[in-house]
Amino acid sequence: MRLKIAIQGIKGSNHHQVVREYYGNEVDLVECMSFDSLVERLLDGSSDKGVMAIENSIAGSIIPNYALVYRNNLHIIGEHYLNIHHNLMVLRGQTMDDIEEVRSHPMALLQCKEFFKDHPNIKLVEDVDTAETAKRIQEQKLKGIAAIAPKVAADLYDLDIVAAEIQTIKNNATRFIIVKTKNKELPKAEINKASIRFITDHKRGSLATVLNVMSDCNLNLTKIQSLPIIKTPWKYAFFVDVTFEEYDHFDKAKSLLNIMSEDFRVLGEYKNARI
Amino acid sequence: MRLKIAIQGIKGSNHHQVVREYYGNEVDLVECMSFDSLVERLLDGSSDKGVMAIENSIAGSIIPNYALVYRNNLHIIGEHYLNIHHNLMVLRGQTMDDIEEVRSHPMALLQCKEFFKDHPNIKLVEDVDTAETAKRIQEQKLKGIAAIAPKVAADLYDLDIVAAEIQTIKNNATRFIIVKTKNKELPKAEINKASIRFITDHKRGSLATVLNVMSDCNLNLTKIQSLPIIKTPWKYAFFVDVTFEEYDHFDKAKSLLNIMSEDFRVLGEYKNARI
Repeated sequence: MRLKIAIQGIKGSNHHQVVREYYGNEVDLVECMSFDSLVERLLDGSSDKGVMAIENSIAGSIIPNYALVYRNNLHIIGEHYLNIHHNLMVLRGQTMDDIEEVRSHPMALLQCKEFFKDHPNIKLVEDVDTAETAKRIQEQKLKGIAAIAPKVAADLYDLDIVAAEIQTIKNNATRFIIVKTKNKELPKAEINKASIRFITDHKRGSLATVLNVMSDCNLNLTKIQSLPIIKTPWKYAFFVDVTFEEYDHFDKAKSLLNIMSEDFRVLGEYKNARI
Repeated sequence: MRLKIAIQGIKGSNHHQVVREYYGNEVDLVECMSFDSLVERLLDGSSDKGVMAIENSIAGSIIPNYALVYRNNLHIIGEHYLNIHHNLMVLRGQTMDDIEEVRSHPMALLQCKEFFKDHPNIKLVEDVDTAETAKRIQEQKLKGIAAIAPKVAADLYDLDIVAAEIQTIKNNATRFIIVKTKNKELPKAEINKASIRFITDHKRGSLATVLNVMSDCNLNLTKIQSLPIIKTPWKYAFFVDVTFEEYDHFDKAKSLLNIMSEDFRVLGEYKNARI
């Protein structure tokens, strides 16, 4: 039985690229048109696992996806960092000079702003997806239009790359998480990172107190993000990622945080992809 | 001389609504098609102040805007919370049954998802702006198409609201900041909130230490957000908002944070809009 992996977007997207790097090619892709429908495919059992972008070194956290994981009780079982490569691609035979219009995701256009400053004759149009434009150029044999997409899209939809690596910041890593409906994929010895969520009162120093405990338990904080609780003013939820050397240290911290904070939950325990 | 206020978007947008609530109607609006161009209008002196969405109770922080404030050395001189009201509007004479397609910003569509579940015959199309669709419906007398936009857009572009307040979560506050190129708008006695940014080493407990100092100085933390420093692994920048009762308390914390953290900067000192 091949694994069924749900991704946001279509074949040729960055999510597809993550699946290739994380699972190889021997899996079945389930293309989802939104993160919501990706979650639905997990909950109804039609996908085994899902791949979800969660933060970007330029744009920061994708908070709605944290909320999706939390609300639907999903578990993060792994993470993967992908360096985003933006390539300008056209129908075979077309050249740079033929391009009148580029259609891509607003974030991709933003990340290639400097490149297009040197090509002021090209009109930039915001569109829903990066790979989807590449697919449409091939299907409808569109001339004069270019897509910004990963290299895998040029391969899949048989397009020519007329300019490679056109992103302004070359070091543009996006972090993806692997989610499923059940936890416990790994033996404890392999777990050295966790994502947690908890609530504190708006009392002075309450977050500092919690962080002191985490530090006392030898946890390193790699990410923190506060989010107001919509219906309870002055209360905050914190999404925190921690790394550790010994699972026992994290275990101890869990017992303490359970007592010290409200609504403490472990969103996932997994292997740090950055070591 | 009327104040020139730069906004992201066009008249009838949520940014416009913030200007009406914060400054009244006796100012000149400078419509900007992106946050980048808003910053340019401030730097070149063609606008006096700018209004910028910075965080949403559903979607979280708009990190690129924090980066814009920081990189361009802007100062936050005020904040304003706007409850977002989504209204479905059409050309006069059209009714709910005439609507075949709704065009709006992906975030607005997301926030009205439940409403459209009851109207599965309406096609949802992602578009760049909310108010811009309202404007186009009037200019081109578009039938069968509706916009989701604030009430001010229906007034301005003479459209009929066929369904009011269609957002799923009624309590959807977005926080906006008022920015300019120079600081010091307010006397110290009126300042009780500040936005700061600093860097810490990836040493265990280094953030907890800084938060302890803030707590010792009687500062309350209302928001925290980590962001990896792109070119320096294991270093993190923190964007933090604090409130305080006495400016002197904040002054003391500033001196300490200047010594304890790297690259400490005050992004703005202003009046808390939530009291």
